[in-house]
Amino acid sequence: MAVELNREFFEKLRDSIENRESDAAISLLEEMHPADIAEFFEEINIEDAKFLFLLLKPAVAANVIIEIEDEEREKLLESIPNEIIAEQLIEQMDSDDAADILGYLDDERSEEILSHIKDLEQAGDIVDLLNYDEDTAGGIMAKELVAINENLTVKQALGEMRDQAEDIDEIYYLYVVDDKNILKGTIALKDLLFSSTNKKISSIYSPDVISVKPDVDSEEVAQIMEKYDLVALPVVDGIGRLMGRITIDDVVDVIREEAEEDYQLMSGITQDVDFSDSVVRQSRSRIPWLVIGMVGGIAGSLILGLFEADIEKYAVLALFLPLIVATGGNAGVQSSAIVVQGLASGDIDLHSIWRKLWKEFKVGLVNGLVCAAIIFLYNLIFSSNFALTLTVSLSLLSVIMFATVFGTFIPLMLNKMKIDPAIATGPFITTSNDIIGIFIYLIIARGVFAYFV
Amino acid sequence: MAVELNREFFEKLRDSIENRESDAAISLLEEMHPADIAEFFEEINIEDAKFLFLLLKPAVAANVIIEIEDEEREKLLESIPNEIIAEQLIEQMDSDDAADILGYLDDERSEEILSHIKDLEQAGDIVDLLNYDEDTAGGIMAKELVAINENLTVKQALGEMRDQAEDIDEIYYLYVVDDKNILKGTIALKDLLFSSTNKKISSIYSPDVISVKPDVDSEEVAQIMEKYDLVALPVVDGIGRLMGRITIDDVVDVIREEAEEDYQLMSGITQDVDFSDSVVRQSRSRIPWLVIGMVGGIAGSLILGLFEADIEKYAVLALFLPLIVATGGNAGVQSSAIVVQGLASGDIDLHSIWRKLWKEFKVGLVNGLVCAAIIFLYNLIFSSNFALTLTVSLSLLSVIMFATVFGTFIPLMLNKMKIDPAIATGPFITTSNDIIGIFIYLIIARGVFAYFV
Repeated sequence: MAVELNREFFEKLRDSIENRESDAAISLLEEMHPADIAEFFEEINIEDAKFLFLLLKPAVAANVIIEIEDEEREKLLESIPNEIIAEQLIEQMDSDDAADILGYLDDERSEEILSHIKDLEQAGDIVDLLNYDEDTAGGIMAKELVAINENLTVKQALGEMRDQAEDIDEIYYLYVVDDKNILKGTIALKDLLFSSTNKKISSIYSPDVISVKPDVDSEEVAQIMEKYDLVALPVVDGIGRLMGRITIDDVVDVIREEAEEDYQLMSGITQDVDFSDSVVRQSRSRIPWLVIGMVGGIAGSLILGLFEADIEKYAVLALFLPLIVATGGNAGVQSSAIVVQGLASGDIDLHSIWRKLWKEFKVGLVNGLVCAAIIFLYNLIFSSNFALTLTVSLSLLSVIMFATVFGTFIPLMLNKMKIDPAIATGPFITTSNDIIGIFIYLIIARGVFAYFV
Repeated sequence: MAVELNREFFEKLRDSIENRESDAAISLLEEMHPADIAEFFEEINIEDAKFLFLLLKPAVAANVIIEIEDEEREKLLESIPNEIIAEQLIEQMDSDDAADILGYLDDERSEEILSHIKDLEQAGDIVDLLNYDEDTAGGIMAKELVAINENLTVKQALGEMRDQAEDIDEIYYLYVVDDKNILKGTIALKDLLFSSTNKKISSIYSPDVISVKPDVDSEEVAQIMEKYDLVALPVVDGIGRLMGRITIDDVVDVIREEAEEDYQLMSGITQDVDFSDSVVRQSRSRIPWLVIGMVGGIAGSLILGLFEADIEKYAVLALFLPLIVATGGNAGVQSSAIVVQGLASGDIDLHSIWRKLWKEFKVGLVNGLVCAAIIFLYNLIFSSNFALTLTVSLSLLSVIMFATVFGTFIPLMLNKMKIDPAIATGPFITTSNDIIGIFIYLIIARGVFAYFV
C-alpha cells in the first residue's frame, strides 16, 4: 500500500472527523483501501461514518458498502436517498454484490431503488439474481462474464472481449458458447493471447469444463471449487445455457461462514454474534443454549431423584458423578465432531451407516477399556471401597461406548433427515448424553452395591 | 466434465483394475480429473492404487500426487524410484507443490530426488522454498510468476510474458518491478491487452499493491487475502524485492485447515484425524483428551470428597450437581469460542483486555441472573427445600459469571503468550471450569444450609 496505516494516520483521520474538515478527510481517505475504510467505520459512531461516507467517490463508496457489516450498512443506507443509492452505488457494483445489498433492504425500498437504475440490462440482471436463495449457486453468482461464440476467430474474440470486458474487474477465463448460448468450454486469456489470430475458437478451447446448476447448495459449490482448485465456476441452467459465474472470493466467504456456523453451533451460540456486539445481543445469543442445557440438568436431577435413597446410603457415589458425566460428554462430542467435519468437507459418503457405527463401536470399546482401566487402577490404589471401584470402571466403559456410538449416529441421522448435522455437537445432544450417563451410572451402582455391600 | 462419474463408470474402473486390464483402465482414467483420481485412490487398496498410478501420464500423475492425502502419498512414493519422481513428477509441478511433496519425505530422500532434477533453476527454487516454515507466507508461496520491468513498452512486455508464462498455468496479474527487482505494482492481463502497444509499462501499472514478507504467518496471509478479496498476493523480501506469489487455492486450504484445527481442539481431538482413519488412529487421537478430562473428574471427586459429610447429610445436593457443572461448562465454552473466533478472523484487537473482561462480566451477570431466576422459580414450585432452592440459584449465578469471565480471559491470555487460543475451548479449560463450579456450589451449600437448616 502507498501509505502504512499506522496509529498516527488514524489520529489524523479522527482529528479531521472531529473538526469536520472535509478536505483533510478526503485526502486521507484517498490513501485507504475500501476494506480498511469499512473496518474503520465499524469503530466509529454512525454520525461520523455518515460524514465520511458522503466524502467518498462513488466507486469507493460502493466497495465500502459491500465490505461493511450488515448492521452498519443498514444505518448508512437509511440516510441516503434511493436515487443516489441507485445511480452512485448500485451502478458501480457487480450484479451479485448489488443483489446482495438490495436483498438486505425491504422489498418496497429495493423496488424503488431498482426503478432508478438507468442501465436496464443491469437492473434486469439484479432482478434475476434476487430470485435465488442466498445459500445457492444462483445466490452467489454474478452475471458479469465474457462469453465468446465458438465460431469466432481469435481476432474476433479479442474484439468481442474488449466490448464485454469493460465493466468486468477480473477476467479469469473466457467462456465459450454455441449459438444457443450453451456452454461448450473455457479458454484462458493467456492461451487466447498466444494463439494465431485467425484460428477458430472452436479449435483451441478446452472442453473439460466443470459447471453447476443455480439451485446447488453454496456449500457444495465451495466443495467443488476447493476440490478442483477453481478460481471461477460457471453456472448453467437445465439445458446447459450459461447463466453466470461464481468467483472464488465469494466462496471464501461461504467457507469461512460455514466453519463459523459449525463452530458456533458446537459452542452453543445462536448464530452471528461477534465479540464487538452489545451486551444485550451477546446475552440473547447465549441464553437459549444455556437454558436448554439447564433443562437437561433438571432432567438429570429428576433421574438422580429416583436414586436419592441410594445416594443417601452411599454418598461416595456422588464423588464420581461429574467424572462419568463429563467423560461421556467428551466422548460423544469427539465422535460427532469427526462426523460433522467429514460431512462438511464431503469426505464421508452416506452408504453403509451400519458399518460406520460398527467401527465407532470398536473405537468406543478401545477408548472405554483404556479409560476404565485407568480409573480402576486409580481407585484400587486410593479407595478402599471395591464396590465403588467396580461401579465407576464399569460405568465409564459403558458410558464411553454408548456416547461414542450415539455421537456418530445422531449427526448421520440428522444429515439423512436434511437437518444440519452440526447441531449434534451443540449442548442439546451433549445434554442427552449427560442424562443417559447419569442413568447408566446409577443403575450399575445399584446392581454392584446390592451384590457387594 | 465430459463424462459423468456415475456408479456404472466406477464399476467399469474397478473391473479393469481387478482384471489388470491396462488399456481399459487408461481410457477410463483419461475421463477423470486428477482430483477425482486422488479421491478414488483413497477408496482402494494400495496395490490397486499403484497399478493405476503407473498408468497415468506424468502431468496427471503429478496432480494426483499433489491432491492425494499424506498417508496414501507416502505409500505411493515409496515404490517409485527417485529418478522417476524427479523427472516425471516434480518437474511437472509448480515450485510450491514440489516443495510441499519433498517436505513430506525424509531429508535424505528429498536431497536424492533434488539431485535428479535437470532444470537447475527449478531445483534452486524448490530448495529456497524448503527453507521456509510451512505455516508462513514463504511456505505457501510459489516462485512461478510473470515479472515485467517497468521500463518496457506494452509490446515488449507481451513478448516477455510469452517467454515467462509458458510454465505458468494461471496468470492473474503481471508484477511490475524495477531494475533491482523491487516490486513497484501490478497490472491486470486485460489492461495490458487493451493498452496501445508502444506505451510504457511505467505509465499504466497500478502502484497500489498489497504484499507480505515471507515470515508472515499463513493465517495472517489468509486474513489479508480475504479482507482485500485478492486471488494472488506477492511476497517481497526486507527491501521490497519480489520473491514469489501466493495464490488463492493455497489460502483456501489454509482457511479450511485453520477452521478444522480450531474445531478439533474444541471437540477434544488431537489434530488430523478423518472419519476414514483406522480404529487405532481414531483411538489414539481421542484418548489424550478423554484422559485429561478424567484427571479433571478425579480432581472434582477429591473436592467432593472434602464435602462428603455434607452430601451424606443432604443427599439432595447431589441432584443438582450435574446441572451446575454442565451450565458452567457451557457458559465458559460460549465465551471462549467467541474470543477464539474473533481472534481467528482478526476482528479482536488486543488493547484494553480489562474493558473486554468488564463487558463479559456484564454478559455473565445478565445470563447468570436469567438462568438463576429460572431455576429459582422451578425449585420454588417443585421443591419443598428452600435451602436447596437458594443454594442452586446462587451457585448458578456465581458459576455462570465466573465461567463467562474466565472463558474470555484464558484465550486472550494464551494469545498474548503466543499460544494458540483455541485450546481454551478444549476439555482442558472446560474441566477447570467444572472443578471450580463444584467448589463454588458446595461452599455456597455449606453456608446456606448452615443458616437455614
